[in-house]
Amino acid sequence: MIIVMEKGVGQKELDHISEIIKKAGLKAHISIGESKTIVGVIGDESKIDKEIFESLDYVESVMPIQKPYRRASREIHPDNTVVDLGKGVKIGGNEVVMIAGPCSVESEEQMFTIANTLKKMGVRVMRASAYKPRTSPYAFQGMGPKALKILDKVRKETGMIVETEVMDTRNVEEAARHVDMLRVGARNTQNFDLLKEVGKVDKPVILKNGISTTIEEWLFAAEYIMNEGNNKVILCERGIRTSEPFTRNTLDLSAIPILKELTHLPIIVDPCHAAGKRGPIPALSKAAIAVGADGLLIEVHTDPENALSDNAQQLKPAEFEKLYKELKGVAQAVGRKFG
Amino acid sequence: MIIVMEKGVGQKELDHISEIIKKAGLKAHISIGESKTIVGVIGDESKIDKEIFESLDYVESVMPIQKPYRRASREIHPDNTVVDLGKGVKIGGNEVVMIAGPCSVESEEQMFTIANTLKKMGVRVMRASAYKPRTSPYAFQGMGPKALKILDKVRKETGMIVETEVMDTRNVEEAARHVDMLRVGARNTQNFDLLKEVGKVDKPVILKNGISTTIEEWLFAAEYIMNEGNNKVILCERGIRTSEPFTRNTLDLSAIPILKELTHLPIIVDPCHAAGKRGPIPALSKAAIAVGADGLLIEVHTDPENALSDNAQQLKPAEFEKLYKELKGVAQAVGRKFG
Amino acid sequence: MIIVMEKGVGQKELDHISEIIKKAGLKAHISIGESKTIVGVIGDESKIDKEIFESLDYVESVMPIQKPYRRASREIHPDNTVVDLGKGVKIGGNEVVMIAGPCSVESEEQMFTIANTLKKMGVRVMRASAYKPRTSPYAFQGMGPKALKILDKVRKETGMIVETEVMDTRNVEEAARHVDMLRVGARNTQNFDLLKEVGKVDKPVILKNGISTTIEEWLFAAEYIMNEGNNKVILCERGIRTSEPFTRNTLDLSAIPILKELTHLPIIVDPCHAAGKRGPIPALSKAAIAVGADGLLIEVHTDPENALSDNAQQLKPAEFEKLYKELKGVAQAVGRKFG
Amino acid sequence: MIIVMEKGVGQKELDHISEIIKKAGLKAHISIGESKTIVGVIGDESKIDKEIFESLDYVESVMPIQKPYRRASREIHPDNTVVDLGKGVKIGGNEVVMIAGPCSVESEEQMFTIANTLKKMGVRVMRASAYKPRTSPYAFQGMGPKALKILDKVRKETGMIVETEVMDTRNVEEAARHVDMLRVGARNTQNFDLLKEVGKVDKPVILKNGISTTIEEWLFAAEYIMNEGNNKVILCERGIRTSEPFTRNTLDLSAIPILKELTHLPIIVDPCHAAGKRGPIPALSKAAIAVGADGLLIEVHTDPENALSDNAQQLKPAEFEKLYKELKGVAQAVGRKFG
Repeated sequence: MIIVMEKGVGQKELDHISEIIKKAGLKAHISIGESKTIVGVIGDESKIDKEIFESLDYVESVMPIQKPYRRASREIHPDNTVVDLGKGVKIGGNEVVMIAGPCSVESEEQMFTIANTLKKMGVRVMRASAYKPRTSPYAFQGMGPKALKILDKVRKETGMIVETEVMDTRNVEEAARHVDMLRVGARNTQNFDLLKEVGKVDKPVILKNGISTTIEEWLFAAEYIMNEGNNKVILCERGIRTSEPFTRNTLDLSAIPILKELTHLPIIVDPCHAAGKRGPIPALSKAAIAVGADGLLIEVHTDPENALSDNAQQLKPAEFEKLYKELKGVAQAVGRKFG
Repeated sequence: MIIVMEKGVGQKELDHISEIIKKAGLKAHISIGESKTIVGVIGDESKIDKEIFESLDYVESVMPIQKPYRRASREIHPDNTVVDLGKGVKIGGNEVVMIAGPCSVESEEQMFTIANTLKKMGVRVMRASAYKPRTSPYAFQGMGPKALKILDKVRKETGMIVETEVMDTRNVEEAARHVDMLRVGARNTQNFDLLKEVGKVDKPVILKNGISTTIEEWLFAAEYIMNEGNNKVILCERGIRTSEPFTRNTLDLSAIPILKELTHLPIIVDPCHAAGKRGPIPALSKAAIAVGADGLLIEVHTDPENALSDNAQQLKPAEFEKLYKELKGVAQAVGRKFG
Repeated sequence: MIIVMEKGVGQKELDHISEIIKKAGLKAHISIGESKTIVGVIGDESKIDKEIFESLDYVESVMPIQKPYRRASREIHPDNTVVDLGKGVKIGGNEVVMIAGPCSVESEEQMFTIANTLKKMGVRVMRASAYKPRTSPYAFQGMGPKALKILDKVRKETGMIVETEVMDTRNVEEAARHVDMLRVGARNTQNFDLLKEVGKVDKPVILKNGISTTIEEWLFAAEYIMNEGNNKVILCERGIRTSEPFTRNTLDLSAIPILKELTHLPIIVDPCHAAGKRGPIPALSKAAIAVGADGLLIEVHTDPENALSDNAQQLKPAEFEKLYKELKGVAQAVGRKFG
Repeated sequence: MIIVMEKGVGQKELDHISEIIKKAGLKAHISIGESKTIVGVIGDESKIDKEIFESLDYVESVMPIQKPYRRASREIHPDNTVVDLGKGVKIGGNEVVMIAGPCSVESEEQMFTIANTLKKMGVRVMRASAYKPRTSPYAFQGMGPKALKILDKVRKETGMIVETEVMDTRNVEEAARHVDMLRVGARNTQNFDLLKEVGKVDKPVILKNGISTTIEEWLFAAEYIMNEGNNKVILCERGIRTSEPFTRNTLDLSAIPILKELTHLPIIVDPCHAAGKRGPIPALSKAAIAVGADGLLIEVHTDPENALSDNAQQLKPAEFEKLYKELKGVAQAVGRKFG
């Protein structure tokens, strides 16, 4: 940590700051320059909060130099984490994995129809929400526990890997008993109690970025899960909020190469929630693979017009099948296996 | 709702869209113009999701014309809501109310020291968090249930009104038993299960905006609480995330006059979390009152340097007292009572 | 245009608004609903500014329904514009075009070294700035007119197509005499006098988005150029400003499929200025081709460490050559010709 | 400047970096820590561009520690700059100055009507644009040179101080001959050639922030003007672009206390362009004075509905007069003189 002092700081202030550093079990290194005096903090930075220095009137700025998250950091864990989803599917290795399915579980029939359609195409991992975070309290809130039972039946009878979203700490355990994989959505990236709860479960967790969390905050959210013992975290880029009104959110594909440098965790892309409409999904899916994503999370519905949520951004099976084939070529062009 | 159709749309598509509208119990009004065909939806818009139309290939855009939130809307409830905090303190009327106190409950001694200091100055409502949403899992997470007991003791022995933050659905009921008022922080503005839970409690709720929720999303969050039966919602502007690196967040003071038009709910301002440092807090507090806020939420600590959280943005008692006096003049200048 | 009136609007207001509409040579269509009264404006919307209605106290909101830009709009010009750069190079057709070169012209020797290196690899279009928009007045501001002469020599002696940036209305004509193609950078996207000036020149113009212009504002900027008679506009996505501190800007690749729907103009991508560092450039370049871009604008320097500007984001020839080869595969995978 | 090196950096890299620093006439100070090696650059940082270090593969991050702008910096010039507008009006001292007038010059009659109305109320500085930066090429672009002559007549005959916007380097000299004060608008904050040109003129310049320039970039823009010899720069906050759709822009009032710390230049606030509509202007004006602004820039038109631009955000004389009186109280409450 580097502490830049205000101009004209005296010995008294330097002594005070040195004492704070010492008390935390760290060493202070003072450099008095012509224009500024700088204090370097030597040792494990996580032992002290930078705000303590920022609260001092004679401190101008404080710059951490160590990565503040550890379990998620590639600096400490250089090798890629490959998350085993079971049934032979691994994410984070050479293969790009497709996760597809409807926005919400609507009925057993709907789920089996879509599951069978996707399975026939070669898809092995299915998404579908039992609980739905909706902006309006008057919108469809998900089927809840009934949906969990349907998901359980689908994974048992079709052999597909099934994931679903959790929103409430009180539902995590039950959800984990019925599906193979949990998902934490954009509104809950910093719902820290929920993160701790999914951290106690022994199932892979898809962790989406919040619409305006920074990459560092996102990695800290992963750290919350890993800190409870669950290392099977899969990051999922789903778009960030910007001032552009034409898309619902802006898919931040530059986050993928950046995350690949900062963390060893796998990272997938959800182009549907960013786009908010079907049109750009195929182009964005290709770009996601080209930029280095380890997987895609795509909404597919056999009858999007009559779906109970996300009508505009679920692909129809024929649209999805066309895309699925095209993605193979892009994956090959960047040296990855797909489908 | 106004539906703008793509150029060259035919009778078949118009029939289809009319049928969808009819099925929802609404009426369609079709205007065929030279360049565009427009379908007006007549009746209660909340009966139909605009995404259903957006999912149709031949629809260009859909524009709602009714306010989608109702309980929070001034259009439907023209009179200001005045929330009675008890002990003679009301928020949302002519008086501007000060809520002050430390970031976190750290000990019984700390709480009584600060409570007595504030009480002497004339402050009647105290803030302090038992549960802390922290970016890092390694930062102080709050004292939890022990803190709730301290808060209870403080309100009983000092006669102050006491509020605290809730983060987890599992803690709402217990927290509500120990304090007079609950707070939902910026990371939980769209934690819908938490909103429903505080909606079931008969205590005033301070609801902060998320760092990038829109005003409409924020009002929908209020609607979630009100929809469960709790109408005592106090909105609290705490800054939004922008690309300016000098402040932690940008305090959006223009939200106050806009909210005053859109909703009947009281609105207060938290300048501390936006600023992230002590310097700008006094100026922003004055501006908040000048712009029309019904109250302020300010962090005060007798020893910010040794506080367990938010060291840089808690005012010292002397700084707070100076500000408290200055605010009176600003309140008078805009015709409000204060302090 | 659809005008939504405030609740409780009377006949007097409706008469007034009808009169304004009539005066502009348009027709008013009034629908009195249960909750709202709506006025539709029938005819060419460009004849009236929506602000005139917004200025009326009894108007709640105004929604345009016609695309406000015309020359740039695909709705009016459905076929792709293919811009002929000369020497057999066309942009906007099936081929993806590479434009590469140093950030700035630094000397004749530097320019010929890089030009020959690029030409050998197969690159046919070269970039290099004579005038540099720099945040600080103390940074290198470009070689100016001398650089223009060097660029002229390079294009004549190497046979490459050469482009350069213009910043000042007073330099447009001279720049146009020395190069094949002009570029308007992100700080000048809404420098309207400059747009008019390049609109009077008969050379292709690369028009970058501003760091926070919306897509609509960007298309209006193109409209300014086209309105003066120059239809050879090539849009170039170069990243937008967001709250993410890890990248200088966020490359908005979703803008490409959206622009392909809204406009007939070609669109290329500059991944270097968004990234601000070399690391993510190769991944973003592949993603740009996969998402549908018609070309790339990439900074290449034989000695980036000693360059006079943009040291961190110029690729070295070996890095560029490796990327150039990899891009061919991605282009093929999406059915495009490249290199 | 502090340079943080990648883990595992060797002596060869340290020698290389030391040499670069030495070559620039500066000294290197190397600290080899347990986890990271840090190089401090001692001396005048402006002699070297941080990108040179960022371009090196073995450098992790570079942090400047000196303020990169100098003429605009309070660190170097601790005393407030008070800009003398002539005719006894000074900005940047204790008095809060009102600048009011129509968006555009529309006719001699319109200008004299508004000037006389404002003068009678006590306003001494008048705004009005001769050149208009408009998003659309089809919108009213300003009366140009004719308007300049009207402005000249107004200032001579009414005795008011008159300001106007410049957009094109070619018009600066002529504009400066006809008015007392120039204005650079939000689209031209980083139009560096224009900044240099107004820097050569001996008239006060109002410099607005760009809709997404950072505070540092804005101060650099001021530095461009001051670097040419013109120190009479008045900063004007006019709102920033955020993701909130309810206001056109978000007025960043926290910028005022922050700027007061960073710079000695006066700073005024334009609430009209941020709001985009009349409603919030009075509340925002009061907040601007409460937060510490040295002046206000407000659009007033005798007939906003028939104005040629900005219809929705120009106050009517009666609205303005009411506000003008209310502002006096707020100014007094914060110890300032007004009106």
